Amino acid sequence: MNAPSTGRLYGLGLGPGDPELLTVKAVRLIQAAPVVAYFAKAGRRGNARKIVDRWLRPSCEELPLYYPVTTEIPFDDPRYVAELAAFYELSAKSIAARLSAGRDVALLSEGDPLFYSSFMHLFMRLKERFRVTIVPGVTGLSGCLAAAQAPVAWGDDILAVVPGTLPILALEQQLRTCNAVAIMKIGRNLAKVRAALAGAGLLERAIYVERATMEEEIITPLAQKIDDEAPYFAMIIVPGMGRRP
Amino acid sequence: MNAPSTGRLYGLGLGPGDPELLTVKAVRLIQAAPVVAYFAKAGRRGNARKIVDRWLRPSCEELPLYYPVTTEIPFDDPRYVAELAAFYELSAKSIAARLSAGRDVALLSEGDPLFYSSFMHLFMRLKERFRVTIVPGVTGLSGCLAAAQAPVAWGDDILAVVPGTLPILALEQQLRTCNAVAIMKIGRNLAKVRAALAGAGLLERAIYVERATMEEEIITPLAQKIDDEAPYFAMIIVPGMGRRP
Repeated sequence: MNAPSTGRLYGLGLGPGDPELLTVKAVRLIQAAPVVAYFAKAGRRGNARKIVDRWLRPSCEELPLYYPVTTEIPFDDPRYVAELAAFYELSAKSIAARLSAGRDVALLSEGDPLFYSSFMHLFMRLKERFRVTIVPGVTGLSGCLAAAQAPVAWGDDILAVVPGTLPILALEQQLRTCNAVAIMKIGRNLAKVRAALAGAGLLERAIYVERATMEEEIITPLAQKIDDEAPYFAMIIVPGMGRRP
Repeated sequence: MNAPSTGRLYGLGLGPGDPELLTVKAVRLIQAAPVVAYFAKAGRRGNARKIVDRWLRPSCEELPLYYPVTTEIPFDDPRYVAELAAFYELSAKSIAARLSAGRDVALLSEGDPLFYSSFMHLFMRLKERFRVTIVPGVTGLSGCLAAAQAPVAWGDDILAVVPGTLPILALEQQLRTCNAVAIMKIGRNLAKVRAALAGAGLLERAIYVERATMEEEIITPLAQKIDDEAPYFAMIIVPGMGRRP
């Protein structure tokens, strides 16, 4: 841990997309931070940057961190892992340079910083050397639930959060052993996820949600969605049926 | 659905306890609402009311909804279910009276309104008759993660959210089939939960979190917590070990 003269890293959850779904604390810290860092696809402004547009002070230094590849390249390709690791190393170095110079850095994280986020990869690389404050955010999952007005779990329901990237048999097994499910990372996995839900007898209860809390929001029973086109961040929810006095 | 002259019900997530972890949207809607309703234990002010203390306008009507019983009476006792159902009916009627009179009602929900909340029981009773807007909040789970600085799930990890109220064998089975776990509703279930974690070989990785983001916050490896005393809203987290480029 460095001397207090080094800066502090803030991991700030931005919530599911609506700029008003930032917490009061995240807004305060973004406006106080001399450096604001965020992930973006190469060549784009990025969704995180878009979400904070109304909150950012013009005086802050913006530090965009551009992914080397899209999120949909096969995860088991060793080149993908190596490229991503190099990107996280370089990003951590950029941030460390500012922290070492005594400047606080606010690192933005869509959703919640510790729930399947890219923030975690930089956090693990910086947390031994610098002081860190994490401000939790509204998850994309909670954004989907609110948009769909779908209570997800009741009483003693077990809720499984399952990535759609899993093999179909692993998906189907999970679907059979819990009471409520949120399936994330839909994208090109939609046809497989649909088959797993059908196999587990859950297709009729499944709700498809795309871009929750944002302008282009789409909510529909999955059974009524006829194509298998979906963005990566789409989600499928199967609400639980637990105790309801 | 009533005519637009009736009021709108707002289900507002308050987050895990720190008043600054309300969203900007929840604060705006609380300050605009002519009626603010919240759950509380009989004879107490209640945690929800405490969280919004700094945000509430003195001009609003406060509508406290007092639980008839504590949350720790056995759930399988039929008298408990009947008493709770009567309480939810009465509460829904109180709110409906105000909505019917054309007044908006903000119903507060600790954490997120659609994630294991009491809000859902009133929502189900009111949603066919009145317009509803739900504002998602930071879950108690996200509050615990931030307080413990513990990333909960990585890459393709499956995360199970499991109530500690389940029988030990069901708990242990779930612990064996997922990669990361959040066990809620600890309270008097701690000894049983500890045994289930030990049985699944997860005791060493388990983190105990109590009153996250609040003043009396306690965070400790579960293995170092020597007693089995815990409040109902304590949580145990077993972080996943998934892909980390």
